[in-house]
Amino acid sequence: MALTNPMPMGPWKITVYDQEYFQGRRMEFTACCQNIMECGMENIRSLKVECGAWVGYEHSSFCGQQFVLEKGDYPRFEAYSGSNSYRIERMISFRPICCAVAAFPLQNHKESRMTIFEMENMMGRQFELCDDYPSLQAMGWMNNEVGSMQIHSGAFVCYQYPGYRGHQYIMECDCHGGEYKCYREFGSHSQTPQIQSIRRIQH
Amino acid sequence: MALTNPMPMGPWKITVYDQEYFQGRRMEFTACCQNIMECGMENIRSLKVECGAWVGYEHSSFCGQQFVLEKGDYPRFEAYSGSNSYRIERMISFRPICCAVAAFPLQNHKESRMTIFEMENMMGRQFELCDDYPSLQAMGWMNNEVGSMQIHSGAFVCYQYPGYRGHQYIMECDCHGGEYKCYREFGSHSQTPQIQSIRRIQH
Repeated sequence: MALTNPMPMGPWKITVYDQEYFQGRRMEFTACCQNIMECGMENIRSLKVECGAWVGYEHSSFCGQQFVLEKGDYPRFEAYSGSNSYRIERMISFRPICCAVAAFPLQNHKESRMTIFEMENMMGRQFELCDDYPSLQAMGWMNNEVGSMQIHSGAFVCYQYPGYRGHQYIMECDCHGGEYKCYREFGSHSQTPQIQSIRRIQH
Repeated sequence: MALTNPMPMGPWKITVYDQEYFQGRRMEFTACCQNIMECGMENIRSLKVECGAWVGYEHSSFCGQQFVLEKGDYPRFEAYSGSNSYRIERMISFRPICCAVAAFPLQNHKESRMTIFEMENMMGRQFELCDDYPSLQAMGWMNNEVGSMQIHSGAFVCYQYPGYRGHQYIMECDCHGGEYKCYREFGSHSQTPQIQSIRRIQH
């Protein structure tokens, strides 16, 4: 990927702060962090994603609610964090999304590809996605659920509600061999197969 | 638009309920509602968007926090509504987004087009958008703010944070002549020019 999208700062970089608005103690990471508290930081209250796409988790060891973090400034983590249906108090672990494809050049758009299935174990009606879909039902999907999915390339984030709201599930081609056979595999916190919007994750 | 995207149920339809999970009193709308309480409904606790894209507001007469509502099911409005930085307790008014372009056929994608400017009054550096951008900084935008914007066609939703999070601003080519000259024109609740992700709104 570095060949098609030169990244002078390296492929991944995130800076976290223990106070809001990028104040207080500061730490930089270029790889995953399994437990921010073991690094001596009690809480993350603001952060900057400087390179790459990341996923944050509410618990250590990449467990619990998950949420995508793309390049930009997050001056108040508390304001950002809520998944609306469930407010996340803390971000304790985080890691790069290694298979997120480069957003530019534009032709790389096509590199993200997945199939959603009506039922568990890749059964029932299916639909192939390679774009962003703020409403699966608007594109013709039959209901508000997805039974299983197969990520062929790249990474996607699936959301409980239309318009990229509610619980998030980060889906990657290089995790589980890209196979998510039932909603319990969507994430450690997933309680239902309800998914109503899906989009690509890009660098 | 009806010519290229036949809509058997009519162009817009939203059904609202005064209890969660589509229970209780139910009302259907095919056009704007300035004050749900004047229709005899105290509160909206769940809703289904059956046709078209809509924008909801926390106050009557289309004021206060705004949020896009696309086709799909919203079984718990309370769970959906939070803009993360500011939890919206109620949806009191709502209206169709008339200039949202059809998501299909795909060639219509190009029909949504806007320009963002570094400074107020369409000044400074500029960038033309006709796609979805979960991180403006990832595509090369210089900072976490947008000074002004011009919507040439279609409708967009701008977000405070990357990844389509935080405060939302619905921008339409047929409102204000498509011109949003400073952040105070972004919405009745806008307090800063901070905008870090932008996407199209489609039927």
